[in-house]
Amino acid sequence: MESILITIGDPAGIGPEVTLKALAAIDARLRARVRLIGSLSVLARTQALVGTRFSFSQTRRPGDPDSLALTDLPVAALEPTYGKVQPVCGEAAYRYVCEGARACLQAQGRKALVTAPLNKFAVHSAGYAFVGHTELLQELSGVEQVWMLLAAGQKRVLHLTTHLPLAEAIKAITIARLLEGIRAGAAYLSACKVPRRRIALAGVNPHAGENGRFGDEERRLFAPAVRLAREEGFDVKGPLPPDSVYREAFAGDYDLVIAPYHDQGHIALKLVAFDEALNITLGLPFFRVSVDHGTAFAIAGKNLAREDNMVAAITCADQALWNQNSAGG
Amino acid sequence: MESILITIGDPAGIGPEVTLKALAAIDARLRARVRLIGSLSVLARTQALVGTRFSFSQTRRPGDPDSLALTDLPVAALEPTYGKVQPVCGEAAYRYVCEGARACLQAQGRKALVTAPLNKFAVHSAGYAFVGHTELLQELSGVEQVWMLLAAGQKRVLHLTTHLPLAEAIKAITIARLLEGIRAGAAYLSACKVPRRRIALAGVNPHAGENGRFGDEERRLFAPAVRLAREEGFDVKGPLPPDSVYREAFAGDYDLVIAPYHDQGHIALKLVAFDEALNITLGLPFFRVSVDHGTAFAIAGKNLAREDNMVAAITCADQALWNQNSAGG
Repeated sequence: MESILITIGDPAGIGPEVTLKALAAIDARLRARVRLIGSLSVLARTQALVGTRFSFSQTRRPGDPDSLALTDLPVAALEPTYGKVQPVCGEAAYRYVCEGARACLQAQGRKALVTAPLNKFAVHSAGYAFVGHTELLQELSGVEQVWMLLAAGQKRVLHLTTHLPLAEAIKAITIARLLEGIRAGAAYLSACKVPRRRIALAGVNPHAGENGRFGDEERRLFAPAVRLAREEGFDVKGPLPPDSVYREAFAGDYDLVIAPYHDQGHIALKLVAFDEALNITLGLPFFRVSVDHGTAFAIAGKNLAREDNMVAAITCADQALWNQNSAGG
Repeated sequence: MESILITIGDPAGIGPEVTLKALAAIDARLRARVRLIGSLSVLARTQALVGTRFSFSQTRRPGDPDSLALTDLPVAALEPTYGKVQPVCGEAAYRYVCEGARACLQAQGRKALVTAPLNKFAVHSAGYAFVGHTELLQELSGVEQVWMLLAAGQKRVLHLTTHLPLAEAIKAITIARLLEGIRAGAAYLSACKVPRRRIALAGVNPHAGENGRFGDEERRLFAPAVRLAREEGFDVKGPLPPDSVYREAFAGDYDLVIAPYHDQGHIALKLVAFDEALNITLGLPFFRVSVDHGTAFAIAGKNLAREDNMVAAITCADQALWNQNSAGG
């Protein structure tokens, strides 16, 4: 059975395009482990655009490298215009994600989810309250805490908080949350078979508070959390000054940085690895990775989108499943 | 008269070393425009370390390329150990800055100040309340508002706030402050003779608040400030998502980014231009630029420090004076 499920994203964006281009770019053995979750009509149109020659069916034809497994979710009146926010596209993209999550939950960790971009305004226009993929998957999985991790090769940043106003993100930092973030990061590095698992905890204030002169969160929360984590055996340093820790980590001093809020990690990783960054969700009952670009409505339908990021996402999901199986898990 | 004043920084750090190395690296005509503010004993020892052959005197000998103007501030019992926090070194570094500011204020804008790094704990140990160079110069100049700008070539970031706890920095953002920051940034670009002066205003919340979903500062403060600034004729866009605006600006889309808080701008610029970044203070009655590295106590006294950043700072100060004079100011 196919173990990598790809939701094709908003039909009006570049999601279906980068998906088919990526599937053409990877080798046939990896492709045989993929199942698409989308709509046949969308894929047929995309195929005409990009010039691939796949055949799509519920059950893959073994031995045929052009045969792709598809869970077809027909959406009524789905004739999207490229590059526009449309309720029917939001509805479709939302349903793809729900089906992907359902299948992964049923497989109890033996499948991984790769998500192509959707447009949140389209999802809103279809009538759903929706913050982001990550939050929806958390809700569908019924877990209390997930973590957004951005990764590009050996550069990895785990975010303690994500889509919160910055003032609220600061208030959401607690010793418990810091400690859980460190544990989740270490577990991820372990799953990735990173040998040393050196974790850097970035502070939240300028110069990591400079001994309390520019804020007390570091002394009150970060330092105790690091102490407790070290007692648990984790190799974690911090709190470290935000304006130097990313450079040090990306130069190889650390295997993971823990960012207390969204933009610290996002600014850093997107500056050094814009085309390679992957968005990984930790804490779900299954592995989930997303491309880190959006629907790119401006170039949708023009056969201009590059598939590199999607290739990296598929490869990452495959590696995660392989690591998991080779660990006997 | 020498128009570029260089304070040599903490005698136990790399400040004197990078200063003499930089003076050896620049051409004799530029060197003739420099006056050092430091202590002869410190410079003599540094000269033995780095192998330069300058002579130092209150009045430069015209025509002698090795003659350097020095305002000698002897400090009692100044026999510093390299790489250690020492009250006498903090005292010396503090006095150099005060004298540099005094001379620049007296010259009414015809001189520029270049500052080598000091160690703030050494300054504290000498008995001074001290937040940073920038704040001290502001106090000595008696101005209400200064701005910290990091620059590396065409990459420029002006910070609306600097050494404040992040929670307070968010609260310190007002429409008036945003507007003043935009005006100061545009004036600086104008002084640099940047033709287009395209300014990007970064938001403070994830995705710049995403229409109020992740914070209301952007709608309540940033958007009105941009509207007012555009009415005044400034080419400013925003509020823009923090995790994409720096990449766009550094790729050439903007001439300046305005960062609402310290780490946004510092993380971004230090990641892409660590060795080149200069720290410029806007709003003083004179031009001031600093190297963007510290005292590097770990390598002080070992002749290992690189002077590139100091060369860039001296060149930057010279250019600022030249632009100012050529503007007939």
